[in-house]
Amino acid sequence: MNRLKCIISYDGTSFSGFQVQPNGRTVQGEIEKALEKIHKGYTGRIQASGRTDTGVHAVGQVIHFDSILDVPTSGWIQALNTSLPDDIVVTLVEAVDASFHARYNSVKKEYRYFLSNKKFENVFRRNYCYHYPYPIDLKKIIEGTKYLIGTHDFTSFCSTKSDKENKIRTIYEIDVFEDAGEIVFRFVGDGFLYNMVRIMIGTLLKVGQGKWSPCEIENILQQKNRKASGKTAPGHGLHLWNVWYE
Amino acid sequence: MNRLKCIISYDGTSFSGFQVQPNGRTVQGEIEKALEKIHKGYTGRIQASGRTDTGVHAVGQVIHFDSILDVPTSGWIQALNTSLPDDIVVTLVEAVDASFHARYNSVKKEYRYFLSNKKFENVFRRNYCYHYPYPIDLKKIIEGTKYLIGTHDFTSFCSTKSDKENKIRTIYEIDVFEDAGEIVFRFVGDGFLYNMVRIMIGTLLKVGQGKWSPCEIENILQQKNRKASGKTAPGHGLHLWNVWYE
Repeated sequence: MNRLKCIISYDGTSFSGFQVQPNGRTVQGEIEKALEKIHKGYTGRIQASGRTDTGVHAVGQVIHFDSILDVPTSGWIQALNTSLPDDIVVTLVEAVDASFHARYNSVKKEYRYFLSNKKFENVFRRNYCYHYPYPIDLKKIIEGTKYLIGTHDFTSFCSTKSDKENKIRTIYEIDVFEDAGEIVFRFVGDGFLYNMVRIMIGTLLKVGQGKWSPCEIENILQQKNRKASGKTAPGHGLHLWNVWYE
Repeated sequence: MNRLKCIISYDGTSFSGFQVQPNGRTVQGEIEKALEKIHKGYTGRIQASGRTDTGVHAVGQVIHFDSILDVPTSGWIQALNTSLPDDIVVTLVEAVDASFHARYNSVKKEYRYFLSNKKFENVFRRNYCYHYPYPIDLKKIIEGTKYLIGTHDFTSFCSTKSDKENKIRTIYEIDVFEDAGEIVFRFVGDGFLYNMVRIMIGTLLKVGQGKWSPCEIENILQQKNRKASGKTAPGHGLHLWNVWYE
């Protein structure tokens, strides 16, 4: 049996999220279908570094699967990209040890959130960038991010639907910068809870609007209550950017 | 009666081109539907600077229409963007003289063609950029563009389906540059024939592949025969970028 690690990129627009479900097209479902085509039969589940929600994209999602086939990695890339629909692209395949696990072995993840503060929506970016045409103070937002960096209990920034008991996570870096007329939020951490990035964005937008002062975020963290934080920002601005392993 | 000039941007992916037709969703059809909603009744045809084909996009398409409504231009922008589907955005509305005509008065147009020469397709750009992962020599392509600049009979670079008699056009500028990992072709001319930019791209790619030498383009122009030039490059890389008026 050979274990293969893949880096995949997908446009989340036409998927009901990553995870297989009875109704709806999913990233996992499409990849497993492609693997069945290649193996001419059922090949079991693939494992990903984590799920992504409906409309959420990935540039560097990592998955692994096992195969009885003896194919060089370049052949795997070609076979997968030929079998996959055009909104999923495999950019790397690596042979890994049987102990490798895409979810359990990940040590660090990066998400990017794209936001446009322009008056008009860019039609070509409407599925990839959240159009938010209201006045915001970027300086206040950047000040607000400082309270999120570090090790905290992120209960206030986690969907109540989460089944994770331990809500303590470490955020190593948050960068906010402009690129091609958009505002990019870059989050690097040891892991992220369900909706965590999107709730951080919704909360930072409240700070940017001047409704909350930046230091209010400290208070929100302390409350450990989802009701204390801002709205969950739309999924389509969110991209799983990179996953690191030991 | 008030004549309004609009600049519109659209994602051509889900349209069967610009022009209204019995079957298929078109840009013109959607705009006319929006105007009917706003006027609560049929308002006649809109006029554009020119048609665009299936899959072709626009950043700065110009249209005009007449209305009996007395609405300030800011109200027009809002009314139109509220009534239009999310793949069409109006970015400017201007009151113009009754003599203004979006097609007949245009004096200069700019098209941009986006091409990716990377190994893997960027899923987020797959509908906006032609993925061409084969070796090309950009220097040769740029040399080839020099033969296209100027006033020529572009019969060899025009679809045989064209109904235009006069095939003489002037290309003022062709720039080829890299932006965000893509190759951008910028064409500025007094007007462009049916499929002209896409046939120029297909021909320049033959030059870039080394199959034709750059100066072969002079010969192709002289033949005045569509069969002499290269393939019509896919529509989804093409964007109508800007239209100028006197």
